Amino acid sequence: MNIKKEKSLGIVETKTFKFDAMVLESGRELKDVSIVYETYGKLNENKSNAIYIAHAFSGDANAAGFHKDAKKPGWWDDMIGPGKAFDTDKYFVICSNVIGGCSGSTGPSSLNPETKKPYALSFPVITIADMVAAQKKLIDYLGIKKLLSVAGGSMGGMQVLQWAVSYPESISSAIAIATAMKHSPQQIAFNEVARQAIMSDAKWNNGNYYETNSSPDGGLSVARMIGHITYMSDKSMEERFSRNLKEEGYSFSIASDFEVEGYLRYKGDSFVKRFDANSYLYISKAMDYFDVSNKILVKTSDKRDVKFLIISFASDWLYPSYQSEEMVKRLKLKGYDTTYIEIKSTYGHDAFLLEFDDETKMVKHFLEKVNKETEVSKNR
Amino acid sequence: MNIKKEKSLGIVETKTFKFDAMVLESGRELKDVSIVYETYGKLNENKSNAIYIAHAFSGDANAAGFHKDAKKPGWWDDMIGPGKAFDTDKYFVICSNVIGGCSGSTGPSSLNPETKKPYALSFPVITIADMVAAQKKLIDYLGIKKLLSVAGGSMGGMQVLQWAVSYPESISSAIAIATAMKHSPQQIAFNEVARQAIMSDAKWNNGNYYETNSSPDGGLSVARMIGHITYMSDKSMEERFSRNLKEEGYSFSIASDFEVEGYLRYKGDSFVKRFDANSYLYISKAMDYFDVSNKILVKTSDKRDVKFLIISFASDWLYPSYQSEEMVKRLKLKGYDTTYIEIKSTYGHDAFLLEFDDETKMVKHFLEKVNKETEVSKNR
Repeated sequence: MNIKKEKSLGIVETKTFKFDAMVLESGRELKDVSIVYETYGKLNENKSNAIYIAHAFSGDANAAGFHKDAKKPGWWDDMIGPGKAFDTDKYFVICSNVIGGCSGSTGPSSLNPETKKPYALSFPVITIADMVAAQKKLIDYLGIKKLLSVAGGSMGGMQVLQWAVSYPESISSAIAIATAMKHSPQQIAFNEVARQAIMSDAKWNNGNYYETNSSPDGGLSVARMIGHITYMSDKSMEERFSRNLKEEGYSFSIASDFEVEGYLRYKGDSFVKRFDANSYLYISKAMDYFDVSNKILVKTSDKRDVKFLIISFASDWLYPSYQSEEMVKRLKLKGYDTTYIEIKSTYGHDAFLLEFDDETKMVKHFLEKVNKETEVSKNR
Repeated sequence: MNIKKEKSLGIVETKTFKFDAMVLESGRELKDVSIVYETYGKLNENKSNAIYIAHAFSGDANAAGFHKDAKKPGWWDDMIGPGKAFDTDKYFVICSNVIGGCSGSTGPSSLNPETKKPYALSFPVITIADMVAAQKKLIDYLGIKKLLSVAGGSMGGMQVLQWAVSYPESISSAIAIATAMKHSPQQIAFNEVARQAIMSDAKWNNGNYYETNSSPDGGLSVARMIGHITYMSDKSMEERFSRNLKEEGYSFSIASDFEVEGYLRYKGDSFVKRFDANSYLYISKAMDYFDVSNKILVKTSDKRDVKFLIISFASDWLYPSYQSEEMVKRLKLKGYDTTYIEIKSTYGHDAFLLEFDDETKMVKHFLEKVNKETEVSKNR
C-alpha cells in the first residue's frame, strides 16, 4: 500500500467548467450546465498528449490521486499516474463526471434554473451521446483539437465508442474495456429491476425526495446489491465467500447468516451515502438506450485513422466477451486497426478495476504505438 | 394445444393431509400441520409404482391436470399424464405443496394455533429436510413403503437429493434436474437481494401485513423480477425480446421502453397475486441453507441401491452444469448407478419446465430401467 501511495499523483483537485446550454439527443435543452473534472500530468505545447478517461456507472471525476484528507485514491489510481498505464509523466489525463450524475456535474439533483428547485424528474433524459457531447465541450474549452486517446471500462467504454461515432476526427485512438456496442435485453433487464427497486420505494415519491427528510435508501440499496452480484463472477464469489457464515451455525431466523449477505448489505448501505437515486434512474436509462451497433462504422471518416484497443475479461458475464468479439469483428471488417485481448480473470466485470497488471501492459504498449504513429504522420 | 389437452389428466383435485406435529431441523416444533397434495394414476396392489414429484420455488401441489375452471394445467403437465414421461397409465404420481409455502400447506400465512392469528415471522424457519420430512409423513399415510422414484427440478431437485440423504431406504431412484448439492454464494446472493427487496418495502411491516389492507407488493414484484432474469439465459432473452421497443422510438422518459421491461413488470405484477411475501423469505432461506454436499453419500445405506438420473441444461447459469457434474462425480465415486445428461438448450434455468421432449426421453427410459430392476430384485 505504501508503494502504491508513493507512485500516486498525490493530492489532486476537482475543477468546474460551465457552459450555457446544450441541445440533447431528445431535442430538449439543458441549461446552465456544470461539468466537474480533474486533470493529471501536463498538456504539451502542441496539445497532442491528452487522453480522456470516461468513468463507469457510479464513477466520478476523481479517477486518480487523493482528494485532500481522502483515505482512498481515485477509482482508477492503479492505472493513472507517474509510470503507470496512463503515464502522467508523458500524457495529460482528463476525467470528468458525466451529466446526469451526482458527483458535481449537472444532474437530477441539481437546481433547475427555471424553478430554482432540484430538477428531480423534470431533468431531461440524457444519453451516452449527450454525456460525450458535454465532454467534447470540455475538451474544446481546454483547447485540445485531437485527443491521443479516449479510454474507459463498462459505461466508460460506451462513452469511448460514442466518441468514435460522434467525433472520430477528434480522437487518434479508443480504448474500450469490458463493454458493448449496445445493451442486450439481459443488461436492460438488470437495470430495469434496479430502477423498479428504487421506484417501488415509497420514499422515492415520484422523484421528489430532495426537499423531504427521507430518500429511497432501501430501494437504492437493493439496486446496488443487484449491481454487485453482476459485477462479480460465480467463481470470484466462491473464492471470496464460499458458504462462510458470519456466526457459527445457522441462525434459523430470517436474519442474514452468510458472509456474502453481509457483504452485499454493506455495499448497498455505503452506496446510498454517495449516490443519488434519481441519477441511478437517468444513468441506467442512458446505458439501456445506448446502441451504436449500426452507427459505429458509419459516421467515421473515410480515413479509418482511429485505432482501437478492445479488452474483455473471460469471467465477465455482465458484458461477456462475445459482445467485444462482435465489436472487434465489425471494426476489422471495416479496416480499422484493432487490437483485441480477452484477459483471463476470475473477477468478473469488476476485473476492469482490478486486473491492472495485464491492462497496464496492453494499454502502455498500445498508447506508445499510437503516440509514435501520430507523431510520424504529423512529420510527414 | 388441443392435442395437449386431450393427453392431459383432465380435471384433478387437491386433497389435504393433516398431522399433529413435527420437530423441525431447528429443534422447534410445528403443530397442526396441513399438507395439500394431488395424486394422478392408480396405486398398484403392492404399492410399488408410486413416484413423488417435488415442486420448485414457486410451484404448488397442482403438478398436472386442470383444476375445475382453470385455464392452465399444472406446472409440469407436459411431463405427467397418460403416456407422458411420468406415465399415469403405469405410475401413481404424487405432488404436495411444501411446508412454508402459500398454496395450501402450512406456512407463514397460516393461522398459528397458539395465537389464532397468522404466523408471520413467528413461523419457524424450515429447511429442505423439513419439507421432505413432511412429504415422508404423507407417503407413510398413503401406505407407501418405498417410492419407485422421487423427481423434481430446481428446488424440487434439492428435495430429491434430500430424500436420498434422509430416507434412502424409502426410494428406489432419484431424478434431480437443474439443481445443486448446495447453494453457491451467487445463488445465496440473488436470494438475499430478493429478500431485501421485500423487507425494505415499508408495507412488509416486519412481516405483519396479513391483517392490514396492504402487502409488500412492490418489493415482492422486484424479487420476482430478479428471479425471472436468472431463470432465462442471455440468449433466450435475445431471441425473445432483443432490443424491441414497446412503442416506436425512445420515450425519452423514465418510463419503460423495451419489451423485456414490460415482460418483467408483468411477471412481477402477476406473481404478487398468487404468492405470499413471507413465504418467499422462508422458502428462499431453506434453499440457501441447503447443503448436502457432505451428507449425500454418508447416510445412505451400504446397499447403494438408489439409482440416480441427473439432468442439467447447457444455458442454465443459475444452476450451472458444473454443479450437476460435481454431484455426478461424487455419486459415481461412491459406486452409485448414476446417469447424467446435459441437455443442449438455450432456455436457461427455465429449460426444466420447457425442454420436455428431451426430458421425456431420459426420464421414460430411466424409469423403465428402474421399474424392471426393482421387479427383478423382488422376484429374486
